[in-house]
Amino acid sequence: MKGPAIFLAQFLPPSQEETSLRSMCEWASSLGYEGVQIPTWDDRIFDLKRASVSQRYCDEVLSICHDAGVQISELSTHLQGQLVASHAAYTEALNPLCPAHCSDDVVAQRSWAREQLLMAAKASQKLKLTTHATFSGALLWHRVYPWPQRPDELVSQAFTQLADLWRPILDAFDAAEVDICYELHPGEDLHDGLTFDRFLAAVDDHPRANILYDPSHFLLQQLDYVGFIDLYHDRIKAFHVKDAEFRPSAKAGLYGGYASWVDRPGRFRSLGDGQIDFRAIFSKFAQYGYDGWAVLEWECCLKHPDQGAEEGAPFIRNHFIRTTDRSFDDFSAR
Amino acid sequence: MKGPAIFLAQFLPPSQEETSLRSMCEWASSLGYEGVQIPTWDDRIFDLKRASVSQRYCDEVLSICHDAGVQISELSTHLQGQLVASHAAYTEALNPLCPAHCSDDVVAQRSWAREQLLMAAKASQKLKLTTHATFSGALLWHRVYPWPQRPDELVSQAFTQLADLWRPILDAFDAAEVDICYELHPGEDLHDGLTFDRFLAAVDDHPRANILYDPSHFLLQQLDYVGFIDLYHDRIKAFHVKDAEFRPSAKAGLYGGYASWVDRPGRFRSLGDGQIDFRAIFSKFAQYGYDGWAVLEWECCLKHPDQGAEEGAPFIRNHFIRTTDRSFDDFSAR
Amino acid sequence: MKGPAIFLAQFLPPSQEETSLRSMCEWASSLGYEGVQIPTWDDRIFDLKRASVSQRYCDEVLSICHDAGVQISELSTHLQGQLVASHAAYTEALNPLCPAHCSDDVVAQRSWAREQLLMAAKASQKLKLTTHATFSGALLWHRVYPWPQRPDELVSQAFTQLADLWRPILDAFDAAEVDICYELHPGEDLHDGLTFDRFLAAVDDHPRANILYDPSHFLLQQLDYVGFIDLYHDRIKAFHVKDAEFRPSAKAGLYGGYASWVDRPGRFRSLGDGQIDFRAIFSKFAQYGYDGWAVLEWECCLKHPDQGAEEGAPFIRNHFIRTTDRSFDDFSAR
Amino acid sequence: MKGPAIFLAQFLPPSQEETSLRSMCEWASSLGYEGVQIPTWDDRIFDLKRASVSQRYCDEVLSICHDAGVQISELSTHLQGQLVASHAAYTEALNPLCPAHCSDDVVAQRSWAREQLLMAAKASQKLKLTTHATFSGALLWHRVYPWPQRPDELVSQAFTQLADLWRPILDAFDAAEVDICYELHPGEDLHDGLTFDRFLAAVDDHPRANILYDPSHFLLQQLDYVGFIDLYHDRIKAFHVKDAEFRPSAKAGLYGGYASWVDRPGRFRSLGDGQIDFRAIFSKFAQYGYDGWAVLEWECCLKHPDQGAEEGAPFIRNHFIRTTDRSFDDFSAR
Amino acid sequence: MKGPAIFLAQFLPPSQEETSLRSMCEWASSLGYEGVQIPTWDDRIFDLKRASVSQRYCDEVLSICHDAGVQISELSTHLQGQLVASHAAYTEALNPLCPAHCSDDVVAQRSWAREQLLMAAKASQKLKLTTHATFSGALLWHRVYPWPQRPDELVSQAFTQLADLWRPILDAFDAAEVDICYELHPGEDLHDGLTFDRFLAAVDDHPRANILYDPSHFLLQQLDYVGFIDLYHDRIKAFHVKDAEFRPSAKAGLYGGYASWVDRPGRFRSLGDGQIDFRAIFSKFAQYGYDGWAVLEWECCLKHPDQGAEEGAPFIRNHFIRTTDRSFDDFSAR
Amino acid sequence: MKGPAIFLAQFLPPSQEETSLRSMCEWASSLGYEGVQIPTWDDRIFDLKRASVSQRYCDEVLSICHDAGVQISELSTHLQGQLVASHAAYTEALNPLCPAHCSDDVVAQRSWAREQLLMAAKASQKLKLTTHATFSGALLWHRVYPWPQRPDELVSQAFTQLADLWRPILDAFDAAEVDICYELHPGEDLHDGLTFDRFLAAVDDHPRANILYDPSHFLLQQLDYVGFIDLYHDRIKAFHVKDAEFRPSAKAGLYGGYASWVDRPGRFRSLGDGQIDFRAIFSKFAQYGYDGWAVLEWECCLKHPDQGAEEGAPFIRNHFIRTTDRSFDDFSAR
Repeated sequence: MKGPAIFLAQFLPPSQEETSLRSMCEWASSLGYEGVQIPTWDDRIFDLKRASVSQRYCDEVLSICHDAGVQISELSTHLQGQLVASHAAYTEALNPLCPAHCSDDVVAQRSWAREQLLMAAKASQKLKLTTHATFSGALLWHRVYPWPQRPDELVSQAFTQLADLWRPILDAFDAAEVDICYELHPGEDLHDGLTFDRFLAAVDDHPRANILYDPSHFLLQQLDYVGFIDLYHDRIKAFHVKDAEFRPSAKAGLYGGYASWVDRPGRFRSLGDGQIDFRAIFSKFAQYGYDGWAVLEWECCLKHPDQGAEEGAPFIRNHFIRTTDRSFDDFSAR
Repeated sequence: MKGPAIFLAQFLPPSQEETSLRSMCEWASSLGYEGVQIPTWDDRIFDLKRASVSQRYCDEVLSICHDAGVQISELSTHLQGQLVASHAAYTEALNPLCPAHCSDDVVAQRSWAREQLLMAAKASQKLKLTTHATFSGALLWHRVYPWPQRPDELVSQAFTQLADLWRPILDAFDAAEVDICYELHPGEDLHDGLTFDRFLAAVDDHPRANILYDPSHFLLQQLDYVGFIDLYHDRIKAFHVKDAEFRPSAKAGLYGGYASWVDRPGRFRSLGDGQIDFRAIFSKFAQYGYDGWAVLEWECCLKHPDQGAEEGAPFIRNHFIRTTDRSFDDFSAR
Repeated sequence: MKGPAIFLAQFLPPSQEETSLRSMCEWASSLGYEGVQIPTWDDRIFDLKRASVSQRYCDEVLSICHDAGVQISELSTHLQGQLVASHAAYTEALNPLCPAHCSDDVVAQRSWAREQLLMAAKASQKLKLTTHATFSGALLWHRVYPWPQRPDELVSQAFTQLADLWRPILDAFDAAEVDICYELHPGEDLHDGLTFDRFLAAVDDHPRANILYDPSHFLLQQLDYVGFIDLYHDRIKAFHVKDAEFRPSAKAGLYGGYASWVDRPGRFRSLGDGQIDFRAIFSKFAQYGYDGWAVLEWECCLKHPDQGAEEGAPFIRNHFIRTTDRSFDDFSAR
Repeated sequence: MKGPAIFLAQFLPPSQEETSLRSMCEWASSLGYEGVQIPTWDDRIFDLKRASVSQRYCDEVLSICHDAGVQISELSTHLQGQLVASHAAYTEALNPLCPAHCSDDVVAQRSWAREQLLMAAKASQKLKLTTHATFSGALLWHRVYPWPQRPDELVSQAFTQLADLWRPILDAFDAAEVDICYELHPGEDLHDGLTFDRFLAAVDDHPRANILYDPSHFLLQQLDYVGFIDLYHDRIKAFHVKDAEFRPSAKAGLYGGYASWVDRPGRFRSLGDGQIDFRAIFSKFAQYGYDGWAVLEWECCLKHPDQGAEEGAPFIRNHFIRTTDRSFDDFSAR
Repeated sequence: MKGPAIFLAQFLPPSQEETSLRSMCEWASSLGYEGVQIPTWDDRIFDLKRASVSQRYCDEVLSICHDAGVQISELSTHLQGQLVASHAAYTEALNPLCPAHCSDDVVAQRSWAREQLLMAAKASQKLKLTTHATFSGALLWHRVYPWPQRPDELVSQAFTQLADLWRPILDAFDAAEVDICYELHPGEDLHDGLTFDRFLAAVDDHPRANILYDPSHFLLQQLDYVGFIDLYHDRIKAFHVKDAEFRPSAKAGLYGGYASWVDRPGRFRSLGDGQIDFRAIFSKFAQYGYDGWAVLEWECCLKHPDQGAEEGAPFIRNHFIRTTDRSFDDFSAR
Repeated sequence: MKGPAIFLAQFLPPSQEETSLRSMCEWASSLGYEGVQIPTWDDRIFDLKRASVSQRYCDEVLSICHDAGVQISELSTHLQGQLVASHAAYTEALNPLCPAHCSDDVVAQRSWAREQLLMAAKASQKLKLTTHATFSGALLWHRVYPWPQRPDELVSQAFTQLADLWRPILDAFDAAEVDICYELHPGEDLHDGLTFDRFLAAVDDHPRANILYDPSHFLLQQLDYVGFIDLYHDRIKAFHVKDAEFRPSAKAGLYGGYASWVDRPGRFRSLGDGQIDFRAIFSKFAQYGYDGWAVLEWECCLKHPDQGAEEGAPFIRNHFIRTTDRSFDDFSAR
């Protein structure tokens, strides 16, 4: 396992302030991180379009990282991936995630997003990366609860369509020899094992369709996140180290009653402040020989991001397991 | 507490077959039920429009029930309530719940639904009922998970609009001296305590805004359904006795992965086959002196409805608690 | 195991009404009980003083029971036992449990109580009973929480005194060949295994110092009531079948905040309405060959006593285990 | 699902007493059972050798059952199966299970056992049965704990040998069109899912290698017996309805410290007296359309077999789920 | 949140030895504490009477603290508060907590205690403190278990009397602009939420009647100590960071059987050695913006106080949450 | 409690490499260990035969340890103890644990093992040790599951034989004033409390028959390892600090299905990576005044031994409890 790395998205200063990839990398390195996961939608730190066409730019990026003492774990197109497949019910909500010219136009949004992903494939290749982090988007999320009645054909059709939208992108990543890692996440059509299975079947077990494992989203749907690794370790190629807690009450449960993050029974937390059993997770990853990155994602509703970032690197490092190839019971008397 | 009663909706024969209120009541009575909750959308057993204007018709209905040996617990407008407030994302899905002339027209759907509810108020009054069962509908359900980012104002506005849609209906029920009992239910804006609180505030604590308590929907969001009664007993005026089980796995959790009912970790079950602690619920109702009906709602994904109905009446009766006004510790030596 | 029997104390009509042993026994028998535990403080059904001196009276009592179809399981002196050892802090509270001439006089109370117990020994013998149910009373209960600081010597002294008060009574019961069974109960110095151990040591393992096992009091102090039988089965000679539930909240816990029974987190319940695992208890009793009575004690804070009594006999009978002396695995091929 | 049936083995009278198939079937029928699982090692009720060659005898057997009102669920060769594969460490212990001439001779034991199984195949066919109940025997059970060090090759070799011993028998059953159902059971090499997987691989997924599901043995190794059905339902063709409880203490755990059955933390119990969640099991069987028999196996260490048998039939029947082919949510307004 | 602070009471040397405020503060500071909670009953470190009248003395005290590098979090009158309201049953036990002239005289004890509290108000004001820590005392604790029968009026009267005793003190603290924080604690009438509610009602929601939150006392009555903060955060103004464990056995439960601290199932422990979920507590305090002190109280029955004190400061500091005012999900693509 | 110490067995380099006691001790000391438990079967670091006869050699050994900064906690004869009593079923498996001349000869194995133990007694004495670590061996382990039927006499006889084998050894240790501490361990006849009780009875409560407490083996049989200390603290004289986890699945449970260590539901882990509640264990040891050594035993199936050893010393030290002889509640106001 490589790491600790840090996902830069939530640590970027407000958009009106200045920042740069160099300053972000130096900051990460100073806190003990050895890798950065780079969001590709913020020009202040990364120009996706340019990276997709210019080896020189990519070499510069790599040089900046190297000088700061970090590597790139993955590029992220979470926001763009969300728009690759989206339902009209969310078009307005998704406007802030895409350029103004796509506003309120689901077709334009999807088209733009597909181009973004295709660029990410090329950029990843030029940066010598082998994995990529994104979201699947959602055609059917508004129907996640089966009332009003949700015919099975509706689901089948949605996954066929979803596969059609992603297949050319998966092929492009295959050409670039990069694995797409879908973060299984509520709000996306791919949000658990069942939906990943359906998708995998719909894309004919495409070798580039893989998983970004983030246990926080599994805890918050009460899925057995340790057992998940037993079932899907072959497809897990990326890992968000994120904590969460779920404390249902007599007022609200898992749906959260439209409350804000801090008032929901299920909420994200800084590492160690939640309920995730990271010992068990890192043990499973050691058992199956996971050799990807462990990337902090910080989305705590309470703690200051600076404190979260400071505590994250030692927390992750403390969980690392150096594996052994020697059995403890091979001794004998002579 | 009155009962056992039975909600007739799921026991009606397929729409191409014949049935009648009389035959349904006799069937219910033969199984030991003392009450029926009548769905108002099936002309074969109940003509809502006629009931809203004709005392004679209502007297006939009452007479049929009386002859069969059952009372009416409540009328139900669950399907119509769903359309009082709905979002465009669901218009197509809701078409089967309303007349053809409202298809694909959210405005027409809402208008038709409002009329239905107003009729239900009058019909309930003529039937001498004091409670009514329905759904709130949903303006915001597709945004129940807070990603993409869901601004708090969006929630506030939705509840203001929801209150505007319901206030005239609540007033009509007030005029009829009937309590509206919203079944708190996923897929509705009113689906837990927090959302009921918000709604109550938005309708200025309208005295007719009450709750139909159905623990199955709370278990399936992991809400503390026993503690809920401690908090909301003043507003609980109706009760669906329905069981459920939640067995999350390493493949799926509470969202269910778009699976069919039988394959979801959370699923409805016949009484006694699920995980609901009905002893605790009936104890709480006894503690607070609930005097409404206990109405079986059957939606088991496995068991045959006939078996569900047969087992339901003795199951409910077995949980009844005759309360005492004598303390067990008032004895003394003389 | 013998039974089901029923403790009559909580089923006696208010003191201004008439009743009789005959009517109580007939009522119990009609509900399916085969035994009655008789409180000895209510002249309407039992005259303790007379029973202690008159074999004829005792024969009459036995005849009444026999005619009604029940046996006497035990006499009870719970109220009198409470006064054998009491602290001045409770004298006023205990006035209702003793004759007026003892009011507010702890010495008189104790003296009266001792005489009552001595009479109970003789009466039990004349009634051919072998066990007797009572309370130990309490010299130290007000100090049960160790603040203000409670020196160990205080405890030692209290148990020495408690033993002194009870030893002559134990000896009288020994002469009558009757076991005293102390109901381990909050409010008594003997309320758990530790206090019973201390007492047993203080009375030199007196063979007549035994236990009335009532799991409700153990659940309500969170003691392992199943494991208790493993440790103390040799001394358990009587058994109150009583249910209870403990549902702590964010407002109150085990102490109960001075609330009334119905509002306390810990409360007694009718059989089957609480949380006691009676299957496990009856299994343990079968394992150790308990051959005493199973006596319903009803103190539900919610359910009507009539319903409690009706449900009790079949509930208990349903838990009976006819033991086997044949091993299931002794078959062989021939 | 068919049933309730009852496994006759533990209900046969001691070997010096008389009995007959007729009397056993009539007894079973009188208690409400509709099927009997017949042990094949007791000549008083069944002559395996004769049944294997005589259709007339088999017709007589069927006629006796029919007259008594029961069907045969399966023949059982549990004892013989145990000897098909056994380790020398157990030869003496296994002597009582085979004829005297095989005593202390593991080769003779295996040979005799194989013949018994081959006869059982033919007898089952003549009795028109489609399933058969047995044990796998054990070559490696004494090494179940991996100390002293247990090389993986040792396990591989043992399963190869086990497969060699069973393959001809499986083929004979295939010729007879009967499924062998191995009861997964401690003391057998096939005792959980992992060992069944290994065996299945070693016999090349032989279609006749199936499972007799008995949850008591899974609870007593803390295996997830509900999840087991999700994984193995395709191979489960027989079902022992048996209860168990596991109550570890500070003195003993799952190994039991060589104590007798009644003193072990893990012990078998009569139906309803243990901890098995039969609601969940019957629900899973309903979900997957299991259409075999539900056969009571009684091995309670406490309760008398007569009581166990009497309570078993209604207990099982009470858990039956009549499945439905109609969805509860297909109603619509018209 | 401010801290870590330390309550000095349990760290003072035996009464025959010398000590001083200066040395105690320097010791605390050297261990990393930033605040001290000062007991007001030990002249060696604090002269309450003098502080109540002399600003100069108070300034000296502040100067000593300042020089040592600590602040005063609160003064404590736990011992005196215990005597403000006490029942005769405890007079002897309370003698060590008050001057000799008050011995065995409940009236004198109460009078002395009231004066002490009034002095504490003035001293706190002169020390520029805003909160104060104390006990409520108890009029009714000996009746905490409702047997012998405890009439509701008895409780009502006790709380009326309790309010009468405290109201002038609360008013004096109001004049001093200091909040009284009652440590909710067994042995006090105010020991949970229900009793605090009753008291608050009896003193007409006096704004100075507040809570010192100590989770150890809640765990040891099995009260939901995390949910408590949701309900009472508006009144929580002080916080004892103290750990505890509850391990009931087959011999004893929550009442503890008069055993010594080390032998009770419920016992206090040094920070981190018990069962309190401090992550959850500090999260709740962060959620509600608690800005008082976090004060270590050490009462471990096993660990040496020096080790307890050394480990306490880093333990508390490690739990601090620097809150954020920036939402983690406000990023957008540009 | 003394420590941390480390058991050297699993850290010795492969047998073909060189090592020495000196290098092992220096390595242990450099990691922070203060003691070493020395295996006596590896001549590279310890010559048992020589130590048993030569005080000079023993003084050299002590000097080497002293120079390295460690003490000897105990000698270990785990491998030899295994052979003191063994069943023929394991002879082949045990060959690697004894000299070639004993191969396949259970009598020779036992004889050799007894001599080894007798030497260990003398060596321990010369090394001034007071405790010794070993295994009991097993005569009956292959019959641990009671099928085929296991008569009680078989168990009685086995324990009689086991006692006969060990009594002379125990007497030799008594002469040397050294306690034998049997590690209670699956695969040994002494593997839980029940079997230790039986053995103790069979050796007439021999004062030298004591326990090496290792919680990992208790967790992996689900025995209550904390309660065990309450019952057996008088006989616990040695302590292996070893962690374990048990995660049963739908495929396997406690028996493990013959899987390798990493694939078993129950597996050993490095300290802190498993499920053992070491806070509770160290608290119990502090409560009972355990003054032996805390010895790391490392047998993790995942983590590299170097990491395990590095993390072990601070882990153990962090759990040490310095006990107090001063009560926290003896303060008073003066």
